[in-house]
Order: sequence, then structure tokens, then C-alpha cells
Amino acid sequence: MRLIRFAAEPSSYQHWQLEVRDQVATLGMKVREDRTVDDGYTLKLNSYDLGVDIELADAVRRLRFSHPQVRVLVLTSLRERVFCAGANIMMLGRSSHPFKVNFCKFTNETRLALEEMSAESGIATLCALNGAASGGGYELALACDKIILVDDGSSAVSLPEVPLLGVLPGTGGLTRVTDKRKVRRDLADFFATTAEGVRGSRAVEWKLVDEVAPRARFERRVTELARELATRGDPAKEGPGIELEPLDKDESQDRVRYRYVCLEIDRARKVASLTVKAPDTPQPEDPRGFAPAGCSAWALAAWRELDDAILHLRFNEPTIGVILLKAEGDPQAVLAADRAVALHRNHWLVREILLHQKRVLKRLDLTARSLFAVIEPRSAFAGSLFELALAADRSYMLNSSDAPSVIQLSEHNRGLMPTSSGLSRLEVRFFGDPDGLARVLAHQDGFDAGQALAAGLITFAPDEIDWEDELRLAVEERAAMSPDALTAMEANLRFVGPETMETKIFGRLSAWQNWIFTRRNATGEKGALTLYGKTGARPEFDFART
Amino acid sequence: MRLIRFAAEPSSYQHWQLEVRDQVATLGMKVREDRTVDDGYTLKLNSYDLGVDIELADAVRRLRFSHPQVRVLVLTSLRERVFCAGANIMMLGRSSHPFKVNFCKFTNETRLALEEMSAESGIATLCALNGAASGGGYELALACDKIILVDDGSSAVSLPEVPLLGVLPGTGGLTRVTDKRKVRRDLADFFATTAEGVRGSRAVEWKLVDEVAPRARFERRVTELARELATRGDPAKEGPGIELEPLDKDESQDRVRYRYVCLEIDRARKVASLTVKAPDTPQPEDPRGFAPAGCSAWALAAWRELDDAILHLRFNEPTIGVILLKAEGDPQAVLAADRAVALHRNHWLVREILLHQKRVLKRLDLTARSLFAVIEPRSAFAGSLFELALAADRSYMLNSSDAPSVIQLSEHNRGLMPTSSGLSRLEVRFFGDPDGLARVLAHQDGFDAGQALAAGLITFAPDEIDWEDELRLAVEERAAMSPDALTAMEANLRFVGPETMETKIFGRLSAWQNWIFTRRNATGEKGALTLYGKTGARPEFDFART
Repeated sequence: MRLIRFAAEPSSYQHWQLEVRDQVATLGMKVREDRTVDDGYTLKLNSYDLGVDIELADAVRRLRFSHPQVRVLVLTSLRERVFCAGANIMMLGRSSHPFKVNFCKFTNETRLALEEMSAESGIATLCALNGAASGGGYELALACDKIILVDDGSSAVSLPEVPLLGVLPGTGGLTRVTDKRKVRRDLADFFATTAEGVRGSRAVEWKLVDEVAPRARFERRVTELARELATRGDPAKEGPGIELEPLDKDESQDRVRYRYVCLEIDRARKVASLTVKAPDTPQPEDPRGFAPAGCSAWALAAWRELDDAILHLRFNEPTIGVILLKAEGDPQAVLAADRAVALHRNHWLVREILLHQKRVLKRLDLTARSLFAVIEPRSAFAGSLFELALAADRSYMLNSSDAPSVIQLSEHNRGLMPTSSGLSRLEVRFFGDPDGLARVLAHQDGFDAGQALAAGLITFAPDEIDWEDELRLAVEERAAMSPDALTAMEANLRFVGPETMETKIFGRLSAWQNWIFTRRNATGEKGALTLYGKTGARPEFDFART
Repeated sequence: MRLIRFAAEPSSYQHWQLEVRDQVATLGMKVREDRTVDDGYTLKLNSYDLGVDIELADAVRRLRFSHPQVRVLVLTSLRERVFCAGANIMMLGRSSHPFKVNFCKFTNETRLALEEMSAESGIATLCALNGAASGGGYELALACDKIILVDDGSSAVSLPEVPLLGVLPGTGGLTRVTDKRKVRRDLADFFATTAEGVRGSRAVEWKLVDEVAPRARFERRVTELARELATRGDPAKEGPGIELEPLDKDESQDRVRYRYVCLEIDRARKVASLTVKAPDTPQPEDPRGFAPAGCSAWALAAWRELDDAILHLRFNEPTIGVILLKAEGDPQAVLAADRAVALHRNHWLVREILLHQKRVLKRLDLTARSLFAVIEPRSAFAGSLFELALAADRSYMLNSSDAPSVIQLSEHNRGLMPTSSGLSRLEVRFFGDPDGLARVLAHQDGFDAGQALAAGLITFAPDEIDWEDELRLAVEERAAMSPDALTAMEANLRFVGPETMETKIFGRLSAWQNWIFTRRNATGEKGALTLYGKTGARPEFDFART
């Protein structure tokens, strides 16, 4: 597997064309068959691999930061008669299990970001299916607010994964069809077991798409719909937007060093340290400051770097089992930066910065590695950076007699950065203990180790004598356990309490998909995924039901 | 694998002693090591296999029907220093994947029945841990209202699955620890990765148990607590109870025929027909009738038979992929039986009958086979039996010009038999379509095929010319698809909308557990589950995280 990088920018997109005209942005998909992130497959029929999705995620993110005038995004295809054939099957068939799972996770995050953009940033989304949309292609459409399908007697929407490939639609399709679009469950059953899919008026009747239009009227109708959606949105945002410059990073064999983030890899111990630094220069205090600071403001820069580091770990360092989360620097500087964001979050740019922080933390929640927060004296676990400790599976805080209190709360901990379930990370931590939560929220000033332990904000607070041994042992033990059991356990314990469509996609749906990916009926020598597209080869199934 | 039977009765229990004294029932666990449902393992340390759980399920069910005076159930062990060591690892290690999954599903259903008994039948549950409770042993305790643990310096509660076996606690443990007992998620993380577990006051502090008592005071304290719980419950129910007699069934190679239910197996086509007959004799109309009728009343008998047939299919017929659900007889007789149950459901016995129907339907929802309802003229898809069609993945109704309308609704369809998510099956079907639901509920009289199709109550209504071919083709196609993909797809589409602790256990938790069961780190030659208990053998893990 080649090293995967998550940087992209519109001028060098391989697979998409982003065009912005006043309030309407159009993102056209034209996948270049030979520009793949790995060898051994070509991206026919607008099928996609991770590289295509990295560009899509980038485009959606840039739209929000760089184009404040935009109020509707039209997603369409620049190819004839095909919108998108979904994730590339040859790529999936030859990928390792961890890659498959992480690929699906990333594409799911991208689709959720599209939905979040519509819900939170006032940029509506219209999917213009000018040709067939199969599998992940249709699932991309499902992530949009509206779907229009060309009515040409042949273009259909379909989820052919079950009948053709012996796997599930892995990008939220089954959940969104019923829970978002409210397709009746028996019709969804028929649809998801019928390889050729559904087209024309039946697709509308079954709620699979919102409308159909003949080819001759299709473009005009898309323009009309885009205009309607644009008027529906929020009032225009005061420009200008900001550019997302490439991240500065210094990479060596065992370390990636960014401006504010440092990732250190210890492959022998299967452990990484992920350290985020507090601001160390004056930060913008209001929108007039944020606009010129652009992507160099800590509240955006540090979090973009953190995002990049998390993705790097997920894809390029599969055997790292434990991530030690650390925060360095002046906690007051974090609190000041948080304050500016919280105070001005009704300004579109500040709001986008906050939403971006929220998404990065969700990415952390969904990362299948054990997360231990390590809270040392003179570290900066305050406000937004304390969310790292709240996202962790456990936290260790050194109980040192001469240490100042480092844990401090800000508005960011009081609901500004909800998890996928809608609860804040403090609410997740104090699930079923409203009194404990109220006490923590009422506490002024900081928490030292003793106070934090008593308040339930950390897991353990060893003193200086025990600190090193206790932490070392805990990490060693953790890194030696079955990675599968840990992945599954963490995927349960991190999602305490209520479920949402979003958590259902990552919980129920993805867990079942991961199961299927390990089954010989899908990925064995005679499995349906393995044999797809190989002429003359038919899958052979073990028909025992599970 | 031996044929598994689901019948049990207290006089011949192998593993439990049920003792009823006034308001307090005590169920004592003393597993007989050699009385296993299969060969190759022994049930040491009160560990259990399916046979042990079949008796437990039976005892809980009988308590509700036969002992109306009981208001508290004490679960304890009749062994010294051990409550229960959980599911037998040797048994799990040597079981097929489908058996493992179905075993966990059944044990989960039993634990949920314990919780339902407390919530709906006014029989509180107290788990008296007079010794160590590990894994499934502690998960059994988690299903009770209260847990008291002996404080003897050694007895602990533990979930050692992750650190010792490389699998998850498979019986709801991770979900109940956080979502029911409100153990903080980081403490749960520590607990579930620490093989020796937690004991004494720390177990109370972390909310893992409700209290501890030294051995000398343990029994007295259990008695006190049982008495307190008994006074908390509903007012006494008017006796007497009814006996659950053994089911009459006539079995041959391809058919099981009960009084009201008939199961026909076609292994070559991988299809079974499961037919339920409407009452064909006068049925009780009120509690004075139900008591003497006992378990011969259709509303109980037909549903007990259906339950048995479903379990038989799950465990003894693994390659049957499609179940055709049919209802025969007079729909008016079903409606009359439903009416009597609905009208008198405040009477404890009638209520138990209704709750039992509800549980059987949930068992059907959770059965990993494709369910097609086949609605022919002169069939009896009315009221409670129409729930079979609503539980199905699809329904086919013959559109015959000379057929009377067979689909009719009763109170049973209006919320008396909620699914695991809390929604009724009609609400699941019309999720997001309240108008459609209101129209159906307002409709008086029956629905013929055309009306049922228009109202959205069925999936397809072929006419006589197409009927046979369309149905045959649909079944053939379904039975030929990957059974894994279908299992996972159905587990998603059947659970539309909200999630509850119950659906989380079967969705998020079980799906992850199923995944782990297929991973070489657990069940491969060097997997932790495979090697557990083999001296000198240590598991070898592939440390790539997923």
C-alpha cells in the first residue's frame, strides 16, 4: 500500500470540477480512471476510490470556508449516462480488511459532512443524477437534500451490493433509505435486493428520489431547483471567505511535526503520542481578526493538523494500538481562543471554525485505536483541548503537589461540540448522573488532580511515585490485547445512551458490514466480492444462516 | 450437532432449582457439568450452555404464568464461592459461527425477558452474587433490578472476555453497564479490560453492583432486600396460575405439526412454510374463561407453538433461507380472540398472554431468515396474525376477483405488541408517513388486495395469472443470494427509526460480536478463544487495527 495523503486543492483535483457562480456551486464528477491511490485497478464509470473521496471532502470543506456567498451545491456527473457507479469493486476486492473498513468510515464521514453543511451552514445540496447511480453513487445522492433523476427509460438508482457482491451498501444507504427518506421497509427490501434498481416514476413513488425529468428538460429543471433551494437558505454571509492553505509539516520515519500538532510513533510498542499545543501567539478576538488570520488562526490551524494526523494514523499506521493524547502550553491561551470562537459563533466564519473543530473531534471518537489522555502538570487540557481527554477511553492525571490545576472548562465543553449522538462529551461522561454533571458545570476555576478525580473528570490520578509505572503498564497491557476485541469494545463504550441516524450508520450498519467483509461468502476465494467482474466465475455460498 | 429441543419443566430441570415461598421465588443455579446439549465439553464452575439457558427461560416464563403471588425473584447460586462463570468457553470455542451467534441471541432474549418481567409483570429481580460472577455470569446479574455481591476479599464481578478471550461480553454487558447501570464509560473501559474484575466497595462506588455484604450477613441481607422489593411491586394478582403443559407435536423429517402451527421444510429449495391457524373452537371471552382454559387457549397455545417452531428453525435448520409466513382459517375467529385479550388485558393472566405474544413476535423480528408473508384468499391475516405480515420483509397478496378481504386490523395492531424499538409494527411500516398510518387506522372493515396495496399494507398484489410465477421467482432469487448479506441487510431494514437499549444490544453490540467471532484473533488457530484453557498455548494476534 502506498502512503496516503489527505491534502487536496481545487486547482489540482483529478476527479472533480468545482464551479462557483454566485449562489450556486456545482461539483462535477469526472473520475480519471488511472489516477488511483493504489495499483491494480482502474476507476471505470465514475467509480471511486479513497483519492476521489479525499477530493470530495476537500471540496465540501472549502466551499464552506472560501465561498460564503454559496447557498446551494449541485452534485452531478460530467460523464454521459452515468452519475457514479459507487466504490470501485476491484479496489475493494483487493484491499485488506482494515483498509476496507477505514475506507468506508472516511466516505461515511464525508457524506455526513455534506449533511452537516446543509443543516448548519445554510448550503443546501441537490444531487442531479444525469445517469445511473449505483451503490455508493446512489448513497452519495442520499446524503443530499434533494435528488432529481433523469427519466430516459434506462437510468436507475440502485443498491446492487446484496444481490451482486454479497456485501452491504456500506455508506449509510440502508439507514438513509428508511430513516432519512422514509422509504417503506418492504420496498427498501425489494430495492436493495434488485440489482437493476428502480427508475422513473416508481423511483419517485417509492421516495427513492424526489423527482424525475426527461433528458430534454433535465438541465433546466436542475437550474430551477437550485435556484429554489438557494432562496430557501439563510441570508447571505458577509464575505470574503478564507483560503485553506496546505498544511506545513515536517515528516520523518517516526514523527510528523506540524505547527501546533506533533505525532510521534513507537511501532515497537504499538503506541503513538499525539500532542496538541496551545496558541503561543496572540489570536484573533473577533470576526475582524479571524478573516485576515484565515487558516493560520490556532482555532482552525491546530484542528486541521489534528485531523490530518488522525487520518494519517488510521490509514498509514495500522499497527499502532494506543494513542496517548497530550496537550502542551498555556491553558489560558486555549481558553482565550475558545472564548473568541464561542462569543462570535453567530458570524459565519467563526461558526465554520467551530463546526470544523466539532468534526475533528467526531473523527477522533470514531478512530479505532485506544485513546488514553495523559494529563501532566503544565499541560493545557482546557476547554476545547479538554475535549480530547473527554473523547479518550481513559485519562491519567499526575497528582503532583507542586502542580497548578490544568483542567479548565470553557463554553466548548458545554454543548458547543456535540458528539454523533447529540450529547456533549461531558453529558456522555455523566450519562445518568445529572447531579455530577451539574456540579462540574458549576465549578469555577480549574481542577487539580484531586479535584478532577473527585469530580469524575478523569479516570486515575497516580502520584509521582506511581505515575511512570502505572502508565507504562496500562499502555503495555492495552497494546497487547486483541485489537479486534478492543475496537469493538470501544465502539460500544464510546457511544453511551441515545442513538441517531449518524450513530446507527457507524454502529449497526458499519458493524454488520465489517462482519460481512470477513465472511468467506463475500471475500473468500469463491466469494461474491472476490469474483465480481471475473468472467465465467460464479460465487459459491455456504448457505448456513447466521 | 445434536437436535436441540426447547421444552423444559421444573420437575426435570438439570441445572436450576426453583423454589417459591409466598411472594418470593428463588432460582438457584447448580449446573451439572455433564448434562450438556452437545459433546466435547463440561460445564465447570456454573458455566452454561444453551441447555442451561433453555431452562432459565422456561423458569422465568413459568413464574409469570404459574405463580401469580410471586413479587420478587432472587437469582443465586447453589455452589460455594462461585455464582456463575458465564458461557462455557470450550463450548463456544468448538461451536460453528451460526451456532455461536444464535446461542448469544437466545441468551440475550432470556435476559431481556427477565427485564420485561420486572417492568411489565411486577416481579422484581434481585441477583444475589454469593461468589464470583464472570462474563455471562455478571451479565445475568446486569439483567436484574438489583445486584448484591458478597464481600469476602475475593469474590468479584468481571467481564474478562476482552483481555482473556479476545471477544466481547456477548450478552448485553457493555450496553447495560453504561446505559442501564450508568457506570462511567472510562471506568467501564477499565473494568472490561481487567480480567480479575472489581470487588468490594469499589464495585459499589463504580455502580457495578448495588451493595456488598460480608458473608456472615449475606443471606440475611438478601432476605431483607427481597422483602423490600416485594412490597415495592404491584398489588397481588388474583390466582390461581395456570400450568404450561408440554406442547403436542408431531414431527417427521420435513414437517413439524402442532395443534395450530405447521412447519414444512423444503431443504432443497432452502425454504420453509410456517403456517398459523386461527382458532377453530370457541375461545375464552374473559378471565373467568382464560383461567380454566389455561395453556389450551389459542391466544397462548398457538403462540407457544410458533415460538417453538421459530427456535427449531434457528438452531436445527440453519440452511433454510426463506420462511413463508401463512395464516389459515377464519379471520373473524382471530379478531374475536384478540378482542378478548385486548379487553381484559388489565387482568394479570390475560396480560401475560399478551406479553407472551409480544415476545414471540420480537423473536420473529430477530430471526435471521428472510420472511415473506403469503396472503391468499380465505387466509386469516387479521389482528395479531397480521403482525406476522408486518414483521415480514415483504408481503405478497393474491389479487383475486372472487376473494373476500382478509386483512383486518385489531387492537393488537394499534400498539399492543410493540417492537424492540418501542414502535408498533404499523408505526415501523409507516415511519415518517403519519398520514398513511392515520388512514390505515381509520379504515373500518377489511382490506382486499387492491385496498391493501393502495394503503401500503402489503408489498405486492399479483393477480392469478402472475401469482405463482412471481412468488416462486422471488423466493428462488432470495434463497440464492449470499445469506450473510441478507442477514445483515434485514438486521438493518427491520429496525427503522429509534433505537433503545434493547435494539442496541442486538444491533451495535451483537453485530460487533459477530464480527469478532469471525476474526482469526479470536477463532483462528492461534486465536484467544480457540486457545483459552490450553496449557502453554498463547494466542498470537495480527495487530492491525480495524
